[in-house]
Amino acid sequence: MTYCVAMCLDAGLVFLSDSRTNAGVDHINSFRKLHAFERQGERVMVLMTAGNLSISQSVVNLLREKLAAKKGVNLDRVKNMFEAARHVGDCLREIYARDAAALKAFGIDFNASLILGGQIKGEPPRVFMIYAAGNFIEATPETPYFQIGESKYGKPIIDRVVTRSTGLDEAAKCALISMDSTIRSNLSVGLPLDLLIYARDAFRIAEHHVIDHDNAYFKHLHAQWGQSLRQAFAALPDPDWRHFQ
Amino acid sequence: MTYCVAMCLDAGLVFLSDSRTNAGVDHINSFRKLHAFERQGERVMVLMTAGNLSISQSVVNLLREKLAAKKGVNLDRVKNMFEAARHVGDCLREIYARDAAALKAFGIDFNASLILGGQIKGEPPRVFMIYAAGNFIEATPETPYFQIGESKYGKPIIDRVVTRSTGLDEAAKCALISMDSTIRSNLSVGLPLDLLIYARDAFRIAEHHVIDHDNAYFKHLHAQWGQSLRQAFAALPDPDWRHFQ
Repeated sequence: MTYCVAMCLDAGLVFLSDSRTNAGVDHINSFRKLHAFERQGERVMVLMTAGNLSISQSVVNLLREKLAAKKGVNLDRVKNMFEAARHVGDCLREIYARDAAALKAFGIDFNASLILGGQIKGEPPRVFMIYAAGNFIEATPETPYFQIGESKYGKPIIDRVVTRSTGLDEAAKCALISMDSTIRSNLSVGLPLDLLIYARDAFRIAEHHVIDHDNAYFKHLHAQWGQSLRQAFAALPDPDWRHFQ
Repeated sequence: MTYCVAMCLDAGLVFLSDSRTNAGVDHINSFRKLHAFERQGERVMVLMTAGNLSISQSVVNLLREKLAAKKGVNLDRVKNMFEAARHVGDCLREIYARDAAALKAFGIDFNASLILGGQIKGEPPRVFMIYAAGNFIEATPETPYFQIGESKYGKPIIDRVVTRSTGLDEAAKCALISMDSTIRSNLSVGLPLDLLIYARDAFRIAEHHVIDHDNAYFKHLHAQWGQSLRQAFAALPDPDWRHFQ
């Protein structure tokens, strides 16, 4: 399983992914699920992947191959983020055409979902969620974030605190708390985490950190958030049954 | 969809269910999913259901029919909660034998999950989760609660605050907060709620309330919990990137 979240804010973009990959609980590994493409001063793109690892890795390799070829459509040459999302969708369809029938013969679904976010000079930062079929949707002011993988445990806190106008550091804090709740409830989501912050119109990555068990800030969030929740819970009154009909 | 939770505590039992049933988003109705069987002074049992409504209703009707027949195995005559769980599982299998093939012909899975909890004189309160196949598991001191239906949004808060020694009122408060998070995130879970409290060795239901939009306590929890979470979130420090490697 996987948990990845991307937020598209007025101030820029926040990306967070875990790195656990498992085929059953007895085959757990750590793989990077966040891939950054940067041409400083001109464009920054970040791709996060969930689903079948062989499919995700094939997409990333195909994107890199096309970049290296320096001709045809590639992430360096697309004119805007909409074209970039279409390009990633096309790569996914190329892999579908190659692999889906063989996977199906073994009873394996073509299971992949991707988040692509970034900014290309001339337009604001944008974030897309790309489905296995290669189609995609874009984050809007009303729904400024996307999640892929095990999204439910970590959704309530984002819904409560993140809006388009949330600052980048505060949004990163929220993404980390959302991840902490997910890790607590789902064994198949795990450290280390990949956290990437992009400030609007910077055209270079502001922060990109791998967060592991020894990261003091994440440890503090983990301990403090649990304690705050228990305190908030204790502060609420118990039901008084006399007031129930 | 549905969200139901049952907690098996030293002090007794807490049951909470929503009442929304939908076949697609354009066909939403309200049905009771919590069914209580009580023989005061001797036994109390509560059944909550999730999954295909026709299957859940058939199980409840079959259980009541067997009760009315006053012979053979029924919920009034089983000797302990293990036998009660087996009886409910058998009723589910009876309905499977009757309906599963016909449902399959229409591409409908035999989808049902039940929670049965209660106390019969001579043993402590017990809670079981019964699967569509009629097999079941029992809550233990380490895992004192079960959820059915849309369980993920409401799980983190229960994991953080409920243990076997939590009091009944506090546990009811936690169940309601867990329900509030679920309703907030999943449109197909909705009011009114059915809340039932059973105090150990009482052999009668302590509290059974239908909680609707106008319930002052639930409204207070809803508003206050959201505000507490936002305050707890605001009180945590933002990341200081200088301390990240």
